[in-house]
Amino acid sequence: MTDRRLHLNAFLMPIGHHEAAWRLPESDPNANLDIQHYISLARTAERGRFDSVFLADSPVLFANPERRPSGKLEPTIILTAIATATERIGLIGTASTTYNEPYNLARRFASLDFVSGGRAGWNIVTTAGDDAARNFGLDGVPAHKSRYARAAEFVEVSTKLWDSWEDDAIVADKEAAIHADSAKVHTFEHEGEFFSVAGPLNVPRSPQGYPLLVQAGSSENGKDFAALYAEAIFTAQPTFEEGKAFYDDVKDRVGKVGRDPRQVLILPGIVPVIGDTEKEARELDAELARLISPEYARRQLAERFGLRPEQLPLDEPLPENLPSEDEIEGAKSRYTLIVQLARRENLTVRQLIERLGGGRGHRTFAGTAEQVADTIEHWFHSGAADGFNIMPAVLPSGLEKFVDGVVPILQERGLFRTEYTEATLRGHYGLPRPENQFTVGRAFVGLATQP
Amino acid sequence: MTDRRLHLNAFLMPIGHHEAAWRLPESDPNANLDIQHYISLARTAERGRFDSVFLADSPVLFANPERRPSGKLEPTIILTAIATATERIGLIGTASTTYNEPYNLARRFASLDFVSGGRAGWNIVTTAGDDAARNFGLDGVPAHKSRYARAAEFVEVSTKLWDSWEDDAIVADKEAAIHADSAKVHTFEHEGEFFSVAGPLNVPRSPQGYPLLVQAGSSENGKDFAALYAEAIFTAQPTFEEGKAFYDDVKDRVGKVGRDPRQVLILPGIVPVIGDTEKEARELDAELARLISPEYARRQLAERFGLRPEQLPLDEPLPENLPSEDEIEGAKSRYTLIVQLARRENLTVRQLIERLGGGRGHRTFAGTAEQVADTIEHWFHSGAADGFNIMPAVLPSGLEKFVDGVVPILQERGLFRTEYTEATLRGHYGLPRPENQFTVGRAFVGLATQP
Repeated sequence: MTDRRLHLNAFLMPIGHHEAAWRLPESDPNANLDIQHYISLARTAERGRFDSVFLADSPVLFANPERRPSGKLEPTIILTAIATATERIGLIGTASTTYNEPYNLARRFASLDFVSGGRAGWNIVTTAGDDAARNFGLDGVPAHKSRYARAAEFVEVSTKLWDSWEDDAIVADKEAAIHADSAKVHTFEHEGEFFSVAGPLNVPRSPQGYPLLVQAGSSENGKDFAALYAEAIFTAQPTFEEGKAFYDDVKDRVGKVGRDPRQVLILPGIVPVIGDTEKEARELDAELARLISPEYARRQLAERFGLRPEQLPLDEPLPENLPSEDEIEGAKSRYTLIVQLARRENLTVRQLIERLGGGRGHRTFAGTAEQVADTIEHWFHSGAADGFNIMPAVLPSGLEKFVDGVVPILQERGLFRTEYTEATLRGHYGLPRPENQFTVGRAFVGLATQP
Repeated sequence: MTDRRLHLNAFLMPIGHHEAAWRLPESDPNANLDIQHYISLARTAERGRFDSVFLADSPVLFANPERRPSGKLEPTIILTAIATATERIGLIGTASTTYNEPYNLARRFASLDFVSGGRAGWNIVTTAGDDAARNFGLDGVPAHKSRYARAAEFVEVSTKLWDSWEDDAIVADKEAAIHADSAKVHTFEHEGEFFSVAGPLNVPRSPQGYPLLVQAGSSENGKDFAALYAEAIFTAQPTFEEGKAFYDDVKDRVGKVGRDPRQVLILPGIVPVIGDTEKEARELDAELARLISPEYARRQLAERFGLRPEQLPLDEPLPENLPSEDEIEGAKSRYTLIVQLARRENLTVRQLIERLGGGRGHRTFAGTAEQVADTIEHWFHSGAADGFNIMPAVLPSGLEKFVDGVVPILQERGLFRTEYTEATLRGHYGLPRPENQFTVGRAFVGLATQP
């Protein structure tokens, strides 16, 4: 374990992960539409030698636009702009396998990988919710299992597209008038349950071969998918015990499908609320809780549970008879996590809303930089995390406090890099560049072992 | 006509519009994958005070990869990178209505419009060719007429998405905890022949309202579509007479659907091969022609005609019995243009290939900067063009010669701006920011008058 290094990702929820962050005097309430804001956040994370920045996404207007800044620029556009203004930091964008075509999406990530010199990552999501479906010709969201089956085939097709040009296909011989060796540019004629794609891609193989594959669902389907395809996993784990159990479970699944568990990195989310003293941190946390508008939050919670808002009185616990995870076609694991949190700590609906306002199920931690570093070190050394997905409650200030306060402590303790040593995102995560399936004559590892 | 100003667009075919440009000693044969190359071209065009740069596109590997650099990064990615490195120049990207979903594409262009501060433009194409179709689950390309019907509905849905937030929807009232006025954020529940989209978009209305709408097909369907929807038209017109006829025809169609013909700008393509003397220009033109590999070119020509290469002997004229435009489901107007060019000038297949290598049907003009300026002025003042789509045979040198040689002459003659006076792409083209259909209570102008 001596060469094991911690990994840090900055999750750029535009104005901060606390839903009331935009209401603080310090916040620009329209920063979600300001590309300079994103560039500045990414530069701060790069100054802190983070492995990557990350953008969540869904092709739908998520929240009630009254409640908080709800406009979201498309992630690959934001990340391209960041690429031109940074040197080293990885760029991970979320995109849906349910509402995209492999050819278009694979091409966009390959293009981002070229523009960034090998720093692209794709967070693969299947997109919950009927509202998104209704923007794409469907009455409601496809079943969870079907979405994951499509996601698996989507990734398979994408790797074929990314590998369709072998690494040495381009010869660029001006004299002989031959630009590429067409024997190394492959039409593959994929025919599957969801997709029929001939190839080749119209982009040669990119610096990383293909983008880092990231996954963030923690349902049973999600964990099986991650075991087969993911190279990094973002996950919400509210307690150490749950985090440790998840880590062991996923690493075990990775081993069972024949992959090396060290090559699948697990990064739980943490919402650090940092103060110079613990008291100051708790006061900021309490101030944010006061700024939450409980009526909006209750409506959103009711939607998640398939209830009317009146069925969730603010000062009572959650009702007894909620649906089981099996009956939910949405974000299954997040649903269960929220119900368990409320039951375990015997929270009223109002208290639950205040807890979710900060981390939406992720571990919120209010304390000093030293205390934040301690909890990170504890999880890392106890085999509950390979790194963390840092989700500051308020941006940019929360990220600045983390970079200036927590990172130097992690560096002093020898846990975290003091300079970048690699040029690509996969390099930062200590992962190898993938082989080309057409060159080596066998399919992408996840698929080779798929039942 | 006194306030009429010429418009210039730089068509960035990566290494130049001549297919053999990559073989010149001066050319980087992999510049098509180098984002710094695109940024540098755009900065040169901006130095020349061009209205815009433009990227063509198709979601397929077009040419034989042996023949020339055929990898193409995705246009909205390239344009985003350019946006961060330029200040004023417009950014027009091509995207297909046949192989995209309106929600995703409308969002990407709205995002580009935000990132660039109002400089985005969308060249709307329906995408010819069976090879592209086979990357999207189809056996062959949908019929021309059906593609245009889908394109019309796609644009209609896109304008609803772009207008789904009214311009004053965001109030950002921290005290009252209201970020947007939800009465001004519209779910519109579009149900049509091709699309069912609920809305709203998850991006507020962008600086330009929506991207400049550009169109480039010159078939009958294409011209009718352009009359209804386009604000700028790129077109291939090999002679002045054909250019003048096209211009009058389209402006007439625009008037007939109730739009102001002055608000639809027509920019024919021109491939300027510029020398210090006419002799030097002709020598460069001849050198490029010598570098074309006729076998590759013959194969491509044969595919366009639905023939085998052997049916096109290099030193004979085109066969008599070619299909009519009606029988072609591909790029109809380009097909007719090529056949007419060969017949009119009695060209052999080899001669035709040499002519097409330069401009692919666009007007190639080899001469001095003064001569290029003269022909531009002639077309502009004779009512055959509102501006030109500049397609240098070799890049970057051809664009530099145009900016340093031709632009100053056009400026001296009072035809072209010496400084930017506007901040947005629509501003450069002298066009108004579109009204919001939900605010004014009537649909997008093209649709209001559609049969």
